Amino acid sequence: MSAVARDAAAATAGEGRLAIVCGGGSLPFAFADAAAKRGRRNVLFALRGWADAAAVERYPHHWIALGQFGRFRRLLATEGCSDVVWLGTLVRPSIGMIRLDWTTMRLLPRIVRALRGGDDHLLSGIAAIFADHGIRLVAAHEVAPELLVPAGTLGARRPSETDQADIARGTALLGAIGRFDVGQAVVVAHGHVLAVEGVEGTDLMLARVAELRANGRLLAAPGAGVLVKAPKPEQDRRFDLPAIGVATVEAAAKAGLAGIAVTAGATLIAEPDKLVAAADQAGLFVVGVPEPGRLTP
Amino acid sequence: MSAVARDAAAATAGEGRLAIVCGGGSLPFAFADAAAKRGRRNVLFALRGWADAAAVERYPHHWIALGQFGRFRRLLATEGCSDVVWLGTLVRPSIGMIRLDWTTMRLLPRIVRALRGGDDHLLSGIAAIFADHGIRLVAAHEVAPELLVPAGTLGARRPSETDQADIARGTALLGAIGRFDVGQAVVVAHGHVLAVEGVEGTDLMLARVAELRANGRLLAAPGAGVLVKAPKPEQDRRFDLPAIGVATVEAAAKAGLAGIAVTAGATLIAEPDKLVAAADQAGLFVVGVPEPGRLTP
Repeated sequence: MSAVARDAAAATAGEGRLAIVCGGGSLPFAFADAAAKRGRRNVLFALRGWADAAAVERYPHHWIALGQFGRFRRLLATEGCSDVVWLGTLVRPSIGMIRLDWTTMRLLPRIVRALRGGDDHLLSGIAAIFADHGIRLVAAHEVAPELLVPAGTLGARRPSETDQADIARGTALLGAIGRFDVGQAVVVAHGHVLAVEGVEGTDLMLARVAELRANGRLLAAPGAGVLVKAPKPEQDRRFDLPAIGVATVEAAAKAGLAGIAVTAGATLIAEPDKLVAAADQAGLFVVGVPEPGRLTP
Repeated sequence: MSAVARDAAAATAGEGRLAIVCGGGSLPFAFADAAAKRGRRNVLFALRGWADAAAVERYPHHWIALGQFGRFRRLLATEGCSDVVWLGTLVRPSIGMIRLDWTTMRLLPRIVRALRGGDDHLLSGIAAIFADHGIRLVAAHEVAPELLVPAGTLGARRPSETDQADIARGTALLGAIGRFDVGQAVVVAHGHVLAVEGVEGTDLMLARVAELRANGRLLAAPGAGVLVKAPKPEQDRRFDLPAIGVATVEAAAKAGLAGIAVTAGATLIAEPDKLVAAADQAGLFVVGVPEPGRLTP
């Protein structure tokens, strides 16, 4: 039995029900299916405003709002959950999507301190708050390692030499900025850095590249350039591994890119079959590459 | 006489007419005025599609299109210009704004090679092409050092301790990414990197921060965060020093920032009085800080 399989077995064996905090996208559902297939019973805590309501209905679930930590804790106790997996996107939260209950209010000063320090601090801050309340934050890939992108090419198309040089440059750039707790993705075309992800997220960054192209501001022809995505070096991997899905492929295709390179073993993929089909149809490559820190820049 | 004043005198003494290639913004006109005040006669080569037509009419000028290098060379000879200063923004070029003459066509392979390597290569590539044709590219600040941002605070408002920490973080980040030939600006608020400039330019990056704020995605209250702008370490300073103007202040104010930090002695400023007035009115600080490479990150 491999180390990964053994870890997965340990994470599923003799455990209570698993709580899945469910943000946007298809990843939480792919994970719920994978966990169930491994015999791990689970219940969704669907985040109002982000979780896909139609998909949520097909699973045992509770709706919660961001800020209802008290309600969340009570429901976890009712359901007999001590382990929580947090999955899915949380882009574009607006004040109206937050409902502060009393427990959360009292935690606010601590949350605000974490927020000020950037994403990494926020996530490890929340993980620490969870731990104080006896809630164990578990990484999705500990339960279902099959959701991790493997090393090598996923679909029919392979990166060219130019693409590989772009991947190396993007990977080196992500390595250099990792300690600044900035975004996890860049777009590089013919050695030229077109875009760096900030708080706007990967999808909006790709939309920006598509817009630059539509405005004639990119001289590289369509079919050039790579989206390179990697976890931040000090990121809490229980909480916030980068993820790709069909939507990422579609956004990369709209941006006229040649393909997508993500960190093998540290990137989650929802619905790999659909993603590969979409990439093949769009003529994009998708490849798992070594982690930035493990390369010489 | 200071070294800077001596250099400026040397750059003006015994020289022919100065050609000013005039992109967008007010900087080319501020420079033409400054050069004239120093007794250096000049003529504008206004780039069709970028140069402000109303302002151009007030100066001796020729209109040229990007791609008319043959016409440009002939006009330089007619006007007796051997020195060229290139100033102003060239954002959003579209194919329709380019008119390729025969001389430029023959140079295209060389230009395309330069383009593929990113901005720095493009600029040094163009400088090399100019040199081959006996055209000397001169830095605006060699002729008119008074257009450089000095060290220290420019207006009434000063950066707070939080702002200074944000400036240090932004400066360190720019130092770390400089060798990747990526954008020259970042936005940092409370230690959190909000945005990194790619090929979209500073104004669009600030517009993005304004939009994130409007969408409720930034938790820092308005009046927090700094635009930090610096030259790239290997940038050709004859050609492409970063510049700020009233528009930069307005965009930073719309993005809800506390202020702007630029590299002292390596940033051009058009109309400093108007910029300071705009900053004071908006309650923003503007400060000249040491160069990224000269700080420990």
